[in-house]
Parts: sequence; structure tokens; C-alpha cells
Amino acid sequence: MSTPSAPTPRTRVVREPQRAMYDRNVINRILDEGFICHVGFAVDGQPFVIPTSYGRHQDVLYIHGSAASRMLRNLGDGIPMCVTVTLLDGLVLARSIFNHSMNYRSVVVLGTGTAIDDREEKLNALRLLSEHIIPGRWNEARPPSEKELKATTIIRLPIQEFSAKVRQGPVIDDEEDYAFPVWAGVLPLNVVISEPIADSRLADGIGVPDYVKRYLRSK
Amino acid sequence: MSTPSAPTPRTRVVREPQRAMYDRNVINRILDEGFICHVGFAVDGQPFVIPTSYGRHQDVLYIHGSAASRMLRNLGDGIPMCVTVTLLDGLVLARSIFNHSMNYRSVVVLGTGTAIDDREEKLNALRLLSEHIIPGRWNEARPPSEKELKATTIIRLPIQEFSAKVRQGPVIDDEEDYAFPVWAGVLPLNVVISEPIADSRLADGIGVPDYVKRYLRSK
Repeated sequence: MSTPSAPTPRTRVVREPQRAMYDRNVINRILDEGFICHVGFAVDGQPFVIPTSYGRHQDVLYIHGSAASRMLRNLGDGIPMCVTVTLLDGLVLARSIFNHSMNYRSVVVLGTGTAIDDREEKLNALRLLSEHIIPGRWNEARPPSEKELKATTIIRLPIQEFSAKVRQGPVIDDEEDYAFPVWAGVLPLNVVISEPIADSRLADGIGVPDYVKRYLRSK
Repeated sequence: MSTPSAPTPRTRVVREPQRAMYDRNVINRILDEGFICHVGFAVDGQPFVIPTSYGRHQDVLYIHGSAASRMLRNLGDGIPMCVTVTLLDGLVLARSIFNHSMNYRSVVVLGTGTAIDDREEKLNALRLLSEHIIPGRWNEARPPSEKELKATTIIRLPIQEFSAKVRQGPVIDDEEDYAFPVWAGVLPLNVVISEPIADSRLADGIGVPDYVKRYLRSK
């Protein structure tokens, strides 16, 4: 079921508004394909942007703590933030320099994050994060200890105020440029894995698991 | 020549400080391999993070205008901003969930951006941006007209206050976990291009240029 959402003045896309989307299904598909977000927050008017991993459950984003220490140290537990996820799909080579573009899908979520204190919610969020990045891993690896849980920071951000921006498809040139004698087209970009590198201390007889062999970010 | 730079309190890496680097050569290599940055700026205390393309010339970053309209509309030409570039190199699958990590290289540049007004500087910056993303294209495509130049916004950000954070290499597990019977290792991630898609209106006899066939982000 699609749940369209009206943009707020803060999430309304200003530039290239025809690329804007405010539909939860669109947003969720982008969030579920990516696994690195860029978290923005401001300290004394200075913005910071930090990459980190995330997971999604329904209308909540869970953001891993590597981004969190400066945030939390400065801001406590009520943090105006922006989480942006960008998937790059291709370079668009137009006949004119001006009409060069990229195919991409990006999501911006604005809101106020809070650090998770509750042990069960934190454990669930960690599992979500892990399964989001590499499904199947959580059930095989050694689970978090109580001490490790305490040392982990996860931020909870409701997905309430959001927008997506998507550019797909072919070159769009000005009509008079189609005669210009230069190659034009799209150069698709993909994130792929290469051969897994087994740890040098791996015990004999432990093969590469299927969820590693088959690892793929769906497109 | 290496030009190490001391971190400021704002760029000193707080979490996992052993991964921090403040060397201009390291920063430049990361900036030159990537071509998408995430630009952070705040409006009324609300941070925004927008993906866009960039180029570098010596100690200056040039940031393409698609990020700029909301910034400029709100902030005029003296903009505290943060530009972050992240290259993802692999998933690190430790034996414990807690020690799972990613191999990555990221750069954070803080500073005040200004929109370029000067026609020559803007044209040079556009060429830099274009050649940064796809070397060879600038000399083949139809150059920007005066009207297009005026419609393009480029932000200039001196690379003065910066840090890099890098995680590379194998799994690091707690000593007591090495006996845990699970596969561990690194899953390398790469951005690759697939077969170029020629534009449907491409004139006969125009082949795929070498700079497209050979396109590769160096690692």
C-alpha cells in the first residue's frame, strides 16, 4: 500500500522539482537498498556530516552509533538531524556539458533523533541493522554481550518528514543539440562485491556461507 | 609532498581516533577518487544534507549547484558548511556482531562556501568538475553557453579545516572469539560500470569513446 505524504516547506524539493517524490513506498525501497547514510547535525551553527550505517523498521530509522558520539556529546538526546541516503545509478553523458547529469535515487529524512536506552529495543535495532547490511549474519555470528550492548549507541529517528529525489532514464538534450556530433548515452554504475577474503586465522573446514557468496544489493 | 595539518577541535576525530588522518595527501587521494559529496548546511538550526558532485583544484573544492539553491536562497554567500566524501571499500565480517565493521575512506571538510561570480573562474570550475567525473568529456561535448554559465551555481570551499577517517584491512576480533566457529573475512565492494547505453537518437557512425570504454575510478 502506498502512503503518499505531503512535503513540508523543509522537505519540498526546490531544484528540479519534477524529480521529487513523497511516496513512502518509493522512500522505503531506496532506504532498503542502501546501507550507508550521511547524518547531518549542527553544533554552534557549524554543520557536520558523518557517514554511518542504518536499518529501517516500518516508519523508523535506526542509525548506528559511529556517527553518534560527537552528536551525543554535544547535544544530549534531542537532536535535530538530517539523514540522507544516496544511490548512484549512472553517469548521463549529454551532448552539451550543461545537460550532463547523473542517474540517482536519494532520500532525505528530517527529524529529531533520540538515543535508545531500552535494552530490548537496542538489541532489536542492532539485529535490524545487521540483517539490513548482510542478511543471515545475525544468526551465525557471536551475539552481543551485555557490555557490548552498553557500548553501542543507536539513534532512533521516526520517518515522518521526508522526500526523495530520483533521476532515471536517458539523456535529455536541448533539441538543437541532437545534431552535435558526439557520443551520448548512459554509463551505468553498480556496486558489486569481488571474491571474499577469508580471515587469515579462519579455522580449517569453515567455508564461505551462502549469504556471503550470494551477496547482492537488489536493484 | 606531504603537508600534514593539525586537526582543529571541530575536525579532531572523536570515535576510533586511531583511524584518523590529517594529511593533505591522504585527503586529496580520497577526494580525487570520489565524485559525489554530501553537503551539510543548517537553516534555522535544522541541518540539511544534499548529495552533489564536486571537483578539486589544489586546496579548493568546487561544489556543483544542485546542492546550492536552498543554501543560496537561505544563506546568501557566506555559508558555514560541511562537505563529506565517503568511499566504501568492503564489509568486514567479524566473528562477533560487535566487531563487524566496514572498510571505508572518508573525508570531512568544514568551512565557509562562497558562490563563484567570476565568469572565468566559473568556467574553469565547471571544466574541473567535468574532468573530475569523466576525464576527456569536456573537450568533446558542446561547451556551456553564456546563458548556461549564468544558470549554473558553483560553490567554492577552501580545503583548510579537514580530517579523514580510514578503516582498511582484515577483521579484528577479540582474542577469545577467534575460536568461535563462524566464517570471518572481508567482502570487498567496488563501484563498476556496465555496458554503456547509447542514446536512442545517437547519429550513425558515432562509436563509444575510449574515455567511456576505459572508465574506472582508480583505487
